[in-house]
Amino acid sequence: MSARSTTLAIVALGAAVALAGDACHVASGTTRYLWDGVPTIWRSAIWFPPLVAAGVLALALTGRAFDGRFPPRRARTRADVLPAAAAVLALYALTAVVHDQSDTVSVVLIGAGAGVIWGVWDPSPGAALGGAIAAIAGPLAEILIVAVGAAEYAPGSDDLAGVAPWLPCLYFAAGAVAFRLWNVLRS
Amino acid sequence: MSARSTTLAIVALGAAVALAGDACHVASGTTRYLWDGVPTIWRSAIWFPPLVAAGVLALALTGRAFDGRFPPRRARTRADVLPAAAAVLALYALTAVVHDQSDTVSVVLIGAGAGVIWGVWDPSPGAALGGAIAAIAGPLAEILIVAVGAAEYAPGSDDLAGVAPWLPCLYFAAGAVAFRLWNVLRS
Amino acid sequence: MSARSTTLAIVALGAAVALAGDACHVASGTTRYLWDGVPTIWRSAIWFPPLVAAGVLALALTGRAFDGRFPPRRARTRADVLPAAAAVLALYALTAVVHDQSDTVSVVLIGAGAGVIWGVWDPSPGAALGGAIAAIAGPLAEILIVAVGAAEYAPGSDDLAGVAPWLPCLYFAAGAVAFRLWNVLRS
Repeated sequence: MSARSTTLAIVALGAAVALAGDACHVASGTTRYLWDGVPTIWRSAIWFPPLVAAGVLALALTGRAFDGRFPPRRARTRADVLPAAAAVLALYALTAVVHDQSDTVSVVLIGAGAGVIWGVWDPSPGAALGGAIAAIAGPLAEILIVAVGAAEYAPGSDDLAGVAPWLPCLYFAAGAVAFRLWNVLRS
Repeated sequence: MSARSTTLAIVALGAAVALAGDACHVASGTTRYLWDGVPTIWRSAIWFPPLVAAGVLALALTGRAFDGRFPPRRARTRADVLPAAAAVLALYALTAVVHDQSDTVSVVLIGAGAGVIWGVWDPSPGAALGGAIAAIAGPLAEILIVAVGAAEYAPGSDDLAGVAPWLPCLYFAAGAVAFRLWNVLRS
Repeated sequence: MSARSTTLAIVALGAAVALAGDACHVASGTTRYLWDGVPTIWRSAIWFPPLVAAGVLALALTGRAFDGRFPPRRARTRADVLPAAAAVLALYALTAVVHDQSDTVSVVLIGAGAGVIWGVWDPSPGAALGGAIAAIAGPLAEILIVAVGAAEYAPGSDDLAGVAPWLPCLYFAAGAVAFRLWNVLRS
């Protein structure tokens, strides 16, 4: 793939997973958008999928930049990208299903699921670094979104400064996959 | 394996998954059989497991016939068949667990799960074709079954012409696996 | 790894999975500890994680002893251990989520999930033997624990002589993984 096609594929993948996953959160009442008058796409406010897509692209470019220092531990090909993205989306949808379980259950389940995704996709320090960056930056961004009143998590799913306690686990899985996306798609 | 053993193994696998998965649907109230006097096997009407087994065999033979035009993208061996069938059965049982979630959540979850199964088992156009055939033919057959009054889906799980909206996703996963079964078992 | 490090790693892994999984069971009301005055660690009675860790180590040593007679069917490396343990933990947490589903649904779902873990990790008779030993010994130990009044399963999750009917499936998955742990970590 050319650099341009790779960029487009990564953005499209990030936006698609964000769109379908966020629809699950809204449909299940896990999250709620609070600002009226913002255009929506499916069930998301128009700004959410591009925000996630930009984050995924940033992580993929970070992964490209650090590829020499953090080599992958599994050889991955383009054929592995769709199942990996589908696994992240399945975990995303699963958070909607378990959002009203006790925090212990939902955090352990989503955390273990994220561990499986990281470990099957690429159990490397690099992918873990990508996951860790996402697990910090993603929830921080959502805490900000909640703080300014643009959205909220359901009562009982908001114990992490207004967002869900399992949110870092979900972002970890997405970040671990995103970190290798550039090199896998480009190869 | 001989052609005969292969046929038997495929039929047995299809019937076993149908039997255990359908038991989940009936036990959870996802589906209900409506005709009295039909003999049952476990929790299914006697005609359901053979119907699914015949469909699985038909797809496996279709996969054999089109193997040259639609080559696999992953080399699979007999050792991969049981985990693939178990994954389809797990997805089947999961539909029973989430049948009363909102359609968005259940369709995205089961659809993403089907994507993982297809992509891990064999992310090829051939397997996707097998999945697509099953995703059309299976729900159509069930719509007919519901239309003649032999069975029904629970209210709220019947938004696709009387059957569940996630049903095509579940059949897609089963069809993608079935499409390669003949050649993998026969090899 | 030295034999000593391998032993420590296996014990730590077993205890960690037991600790996090059991926390899910207690938090969800799947199980309840009944003896007062026993020190707790996270949500477990102090004796539970060491008991599981000892069982995992015993199975790993059994697997080492029988390695010649029951060779693995997939080559596994240390990088595969964390995802395998995470998969067992995810299945453990999932039992907490589905503990109040009908027995049919929870047993088929957890059983199929255990089949996936066994079949992806190592679809060998040896791993199945490890799983079978765990599936018998683990629930028997828990039946004893319930019988002496140290703990109980929730009503509706206690149909197997006081313990949950899906418990053998969960132990099967853990045992199948444990059986290969020594040789995989040691290599």
